[in-house]
Amino acid sequence: MNTHKLRMGMVGGGRDAFIGAVHRTAACMDGRVSFVAGALSSTPEKALASGRDVGLDDRRNYGTWREMLERELALPQDQRIDFVSIVTPNDTHFPVAEAFVQAGFAVVCDKPLVHTSQQAAALIRAVQRAETVFAVTYNYSGYPMVKQARHMVEQGELGDIRKVIVEYNQGWLADKIEETGQKQAQWRTDPARSGIGGAIGDIGSHAEQLVAYVTGLEIDGICADITTFVPGRRLDDDANLLVRYTNGARGLLFASQICIGSENDLRLRAWGTKGGIEWRQEEPNHLVFRPEGRPERIYRRGNDYLCQAAKNNTRLPFGHPEAFIEAFANVYNAAGDAIRAGAGADGGPKHDYPDVYDGARGVHFIERTVASSERDQKWTDARWTMRRGSDA
Amino acid sequence: MNTHKLRMGMVGGGRDAFIGAVHRTAACMDGRVSFVAGALSSTPEKALASGRDVGLDDRRNYGTWREMLERELALPQDQRIDFVSIVTPNDTHFPVAEAFVQAGFAVVCDKPLVHTSQQAAALIRAVQRAETVFAVTYNYSGYPMVKQARHMVEQGELGDIRKVIVEYNQGWLADKIEETGQKQAQWRTDPARSGIGGAIGDIGSHAEQLVAYVTGLEIDGICADITTFVPGRRLDDDANLLVRYTNGARGLLFASQICIGSENDLRLRAWGTKGGIEWRQEEPNHLVFRPEGRPERIYRRGNDYLCQAAKNNTRLPFGHPEAFIEAFANVYNAAGDAIRAGAGADGGPKHDYPDVYDGARGVHFIERTVASSERDQKWTDARWTMRRGSDA
Amino acid sequence: MNTHKLRMGMVGGGRDAFIGAVHRTAACMDGRVSFVAGALSSTPEKALASGRDVGLDDRRNYGTWREMLERELALPQDQRIDFVSIVTPNDTHFPVAEAFVQAGFAVVCDKPLVHTSQQAAALIRAVQRAETVFAVTYNYSGYPMVKQARHMVEQGELGDIRKVIVEYNQGWLADKIEETGQKQAQWRTDPARSGIGGAIGDIGSHAEQLVAYVTGLEIDGICADITTFVPGRRLDDDANLLVRYTNGARGLLFASQICIGSENDLRLRAWGTKGGIEWRQEEPNHLVFRPEGRPERIYRRGNDYLCQAAKNNTRLPFGHPEAFIEAFANVYNAAGDAIRAGAGADGGPKHDYPDVYDGARGVHFIERTVASSERDQKWTDARWTMRRGSDA
Amino acid sequence: MNTHKLRMGMVGGGRDAFIGAVHRTAACMDGRVSFVAGALSSTPEKALASGRDVGLDDRRNYGTWREMLERELALPQDQRIDFVSIVTPNDTHFPVAEAFVQAGFAVVCDKPLVHTSQQAAALIRAVQRAETVFAVTYNYSGYPMVKQARHMVEQGELGDIRKVIVEYNQGWLADKIEETGQKQAQWRTDPARSGIGGAIGDIGSHAEQLVAYVTGLEIDGICADITTFVPGRRLDDDANLLVRYTNGARGLLFASQICIGSENDLRLRAWGTKGGIEWRQEEPNHLVFRPEGRPERIYRRGNDYLCQAAKNNTRLPFGHPEAFIEAFANVYNAAGDAIRAGAGADGGPKHDYPDVYDGARGVHFIERTVASSERDQKWTDARWTMRRGSDA
Repeated sequence: MNTHKLRMGMVGGGRDAFIGAVHRTAACMDGRVSFVAGALSSTPEKALASGRDVGLDDRRNYGTWREMLERELALPQDQRIDFVSIVTPNDTHFPVAEAFVQAGFAVVCDKPLVHTSQQAAALIRAVQRAETVFAVTYNYSGYPMVKQARHMVEQGELGDIRKVIVEYNQGWLADKIEETGQKQAQWRTDPARSGIGGAIGDIGSHAEQLVAYVTGLEIDGICADITTFVPGRRLDDDANLLVRYTNGARGLLFASQICIGSENDLRLRAWGTKGGIEWRQEEPNHLVFRPEGRPERIYRRGNDYLCQAAKNNTRLPFGHPEAFIEAFANVYNAAGDAIRAGAGADGGPKHDYPDVYDGARGVHFIERTVASSERDQKWTDARWTMRRGSDA
Repeated sequence: MNTHKLRMGMVGGGRDAFIGAVHRTAACMDGRVSFVAGALSSTPEKALASGRDVGLDDRRNYGTWREMLERELALPQDQRIDFVSIVTPNDTHFPVAEAFVQAGFAVVCDKPLVHTSQQAAALIRAVQRAETVFAVTYNYSGYPMVKQARHMVEQGELGDIRKVIVEYNQGWLADKIEETGQKQAQWRTDPARSGIGGAIGDIGSHAEQLVAYVTGLEIDGICADITTFVPGRRLDDDANLLVRYTNGARGLLFASQICIGSENDLRLRAWGTKGGIEWRQEEPNHLVFRPEGRPERIYRRGNDYLCQAAKNNTRLPFGHPEAFIEAFANVYNAAGDAIRAGAGADGGPKHDYPDVYDGARGVHFIERTVASSERDQKWTDARWTMRRGSDA
Repeated sequence: MNTHKLRMGMVGGGRDAFIGAVHRTAACMDGRVSFVAGALSSTPEKALASGRDVGLDDRRNYGTWREMLERELALPQDQRIDFVSIVTPNDTHFPVAEAFVQAGFAVVCDKPLVHTSQQAAALIRAVQRAETVFAVTYNYSGYPMVKQARHMVEQGELGDIRKVIVEYNQGWLADKIEETGQKQAQWRTDPARSGIGGAIGDIGSHAEQLVAYVTGLEIDGICADITTFVPGRRLDDDANLLVRYTNGARGLLFASQICIGSENDLRLRAWGTKGGIEWRQEEPNHLVFRPEGRPERIYRRGNDYLCQAAKNNTRLPFGHPEAFIEAFANVYNAAGDAIRAGAGADGGPKHDYPDVYDGARGVHFIERTVASSERDQKWTDARWTMRRGSDA
Repeated sequence: MNTHKLRMGMVGGGRDAFIGAVHRTAACMDGRVSFVAGALSSTPEKALASGRDVGLDDRRNYGTWREMLERELALPQDQRIDFVSIVTPNDTHFPVAEAFVQAGFAVVCDKPLVHTSQQAAALIRAVQRAETVFAVTYNYSGYPMVKQARHMVEQGELGDIRKVIVEYNQGWLADKIEETGQKQAQWRTDPARSGIGGAIGDIGSHAEQLVAYVTGLEIDGICADITTFVPGRRLDDDANLLVRYTNGARGLLFASQICIGSENDLRLRAWGTKGGIEWRQEEPNHLVFRPEGRPERIYRRGNDYLCQAAKNNTRLPFGHPEAFIEAFANVYNAAGDAIRAGAGADGGPKHDYPDVYDGARGVHFIERTVASSERDQKWTDARWTMRRGSDA
């Protein structure tokens, strides 16, 4: 396999931004990526200081992403970054991503992808024209046992899916900490920076993608009840949805950031005509399978009996737990393989990373959810009709 | 305390009816109740055979409930049954209960109480007139750790409740076993016997009562999506509800009988402004409490630090697990205490058993859920305005 | 099947004795036993008062066990008790049991059986001569999932057993509560009443029996380290043993009553050449099986895939948890079946209840453990050579 | 803080050696260490090929560790490696470590440290003379919740420790896979390469260190029963120990590699006069604390209520699980801080990494265990009298 080390630039992820460090560690953890350039903050001074903190070479420690774009393009191709990782608050995803895509760079972008479906469509068109790899860090689908779950659904071990319960509960926004100087809380509760979704955008979108990834189901309609519990908060902090899928399956999707004591409690349960599965992010190394009429089975990461995708995305032997950072790294590795292979705009399914289409579908989901909630919480069409490879 | 042994008669619960044996064992397990009379099946031959199976004295082993009613009334008061336990399929709850109430007997009746709110109102009026004790076996509220949860809510340890998730998942009806001769499946999927609710009636009603009991919240509105997954089945086997409570709390209530591998998976989670709780019926001996900013706490049955109600409803020391049958017995014991105390129609709250009002509220809940689902799954007013002590 | 209701008398189990109530509830819970006579305490006044508390008929509420023995023998056989349940502190097991056996009564006796192997041998001889049923309430082997574990070992699903870890941890004696008036603590820490073993006698003996029941292994030698942690206590409160079995398997057996926060934490793990099992008393409704090279399996009580013994000892459907009291009742039911069948002295294995030989083996185990610990914790022969049906 | 990036060389860890990759990823994951030189295998060809696999610069990709030592010494100090990581099979730890120490390099070495206490003493003397940092990768003590446990013991939250149960169960050597070409199994079951301990050396030594790290207790005596279950195997695959500590505490330490279905099941339980703790490596993100008379508490990684050491060794917010690789990295980070600070031979306690004394104590433990088992499994003095800072 072509495994040459890729050069990564980063936009965002400076001081105080925990997720930037996660992206850097994940991208580099297997030695397949070098972090060589960055514009790590929105203010040049802070950007440069942040770059020095993390050891960037002064020549490639940029004050702004535009400067980075321009100066990297000016480098010979064998020195230039291979891709840019965009880890800014959501509001700058679109301009940064579009500019880098148009310049021919591959992109890894945090989620939710952009603010509106219009932006998403524009971005898809840009990606299609540029034929670049574009990955979205729906990191939870990088877990090996999630891949095992997907495999078992594909193999028909659950039969036809009837019911899906996905939930994502957190409690860190139970109080109005956005007024205490907490940076994350500030931008995540600010519609100008986060977009129209609060909890539904930040974590509900992960839940939507996890269902799509594991089950392959497509949402038909949703009925959403979105609430802001903390007085004065400007975005929702709680979202409850009834969901119908195009195959007739029914489901619930709920996400909240006011569930005190819930830390990062993403869970998926799905049942078909032959069995059910259950997976939980906080204990990610096993998957429960319940076949009809037989004892429950616990599948554990690292065992020979797992599917190839689960094995390929595992580093350590069984019993030596892997966790969040490895799952994140798996998304980077898959995107990296696609970049090396020149996979183009539609490389997601083949190389097993969430791509720009997944990102766009997430934006659509957030929009339809908010629309349903604003329309007296009525059932709302939420089909996403765009197809990979078609024109956006 | 007056603890004289009460004499119990039973209607229903003959051969093949597992729940009848549960009621008898639960009622009698602490030696406070004697099972002395019964009309255990709807056909006289089977009733008599069933009574002989369980050792009823021939003189009080009746062929029909009407016969039992008449002949027990003819006995001197100190021999006559003190109360009747009604464990028939739902369709006969109303006539049997009404007749025994009107004759002045105390009643313990299985849930859901009756088929319609009209019947429920009639029954309440009868109970009020007769001044009898009327208990409904919402057995899950008999668990000591459920009582501890209720206590903690009452004490304000959770703060103001914001979010409630209650779920009740089973898998035993994932296939069309009502056609295989399984008696339970037959009547539970038959609208003539079960009423208008399938899963929502059989188990959703338990979920509704559990929330009401623990949190004290009152439902304001619901938005329900009810489905029948098994082809040809005549009642729903899956129900998903968004719920709004009158205090502003939001919630989800879901119940299903097609979740393969789920056995009797009733769970309650509730979060307030100060903390959250979690309880699960299949592991009933502990309760999780998550206070804000402090380590999660596991409260275990049998410990000195629990509330008085939890202690009063416990038989064994900690670590010696109690389970389903003891919780059921707790409902019988509380109803029995009310009967001994002559508590009358409104004795539920004082003696801590679900009473006829709880039963009526459950019927209302089922009706409003089905109404919502039939009205294009729109939000539907589901307030229950009846109050204990007021005229029905 | 012959299921006539048996008449039970009880010795011990009066006021303040929680275990007496457990025995009565368990014996009677399925309606196959009537509690009709008792001498519930060692002082006549307290005995009579206790009997009145629990509703014994005055004529059969006796002041002493000798009076009960004499007066019951004087009753016609069809009124006389069928068996006596002995639930006194250990020191009186022997005289009471021997007297009732010699008078031809069947006996159910709490554990440990007696104080010395000499007493045990004498009792076995008496039982053999009288040809009576004699059960010992090693209640944990009454759990259905324990029976499933035993079945799987017998079927060879684990292969040849290599390693066994059994542990029984409690914390209730971490402080010197025997000086606070706690009755249980008083007699259990008093060698005159408990015998030579403290923790090793009270709970270590359960652990020994559980291993024997599930695995069928026979102890060859032990090396024991027994400690009294609480200053001034007169019996051990902590015991750690290395164990060798005659088939070459090795193991650990440990039991403690100073493990704060451990409630009644009896666990068994066993591994063979083909797989391993794990069971825990505090969550008794499932059994873990780990077959080599395949996913772990969770067997749950109440399912069709279980063995016949597990099914026969189950009352409720899956998901409706059963617990301590039902397991206890299973021992009584099995002993009752043996009594009805006239099974005689050697009925344990056939009717699946722990019998006098199991009780005697437990006494031997306690003696050898104490001997090892007193001999500088050296390895000590602990083979138990008595065989059912042979002369004691 | 001085955080300049350290240059790491590695000995061992070539193709087929999973643990080499773990060390490299862990050392480098936070960007504080560069992997710049290596002699990755014992045969020069394989060493060079392995170095190329992982992207080593040809000039510093050495055929042998002696060549690396010599040529690195010849480099200017600001290019030369700062430390060497030794991840070879155990038999070469001593010569490699001694040589690098004597040349003045800091060392990070895998465990068990060396084959004999004589070697350990010689190594300590060398480290003392050279005043170098020497870390031993007892990686499990790098987990933040282990540090929390240690903190709680130090703070007296458990009171005086009475009882310690530590266990480490694996199943991967249940069959004779050393004959199937499995490299790890080959050397780990080969006394020439592993030393005198099989399971007791490979994993028992981790258990010993975990107890010492968390509780601070010192072993007084042990009584060991060591077994080889797999026919023809040359080292033990199962070890069971009774342990006495110098403060009077008692314990069990057991380790096995034939427990089918156990993956990497390291658990620690300890109880004192005021409470108990429990931690399990396979679910490392929480710690259970059971204070006397109060509800059990679950401490979770990433929360404000934890001790400073737990916080310092955490990268991700609560609910975003960390695992094996991060714990490993924590050991490297602490050793790196000591190297930067010029901490010398005795830097372990101050900088919180296991040092050469811990390594030596582990060798002593293995020797005494084997001695006990060979002396008819008698109690054997196992005190370790060496003190940091004293002459070895």
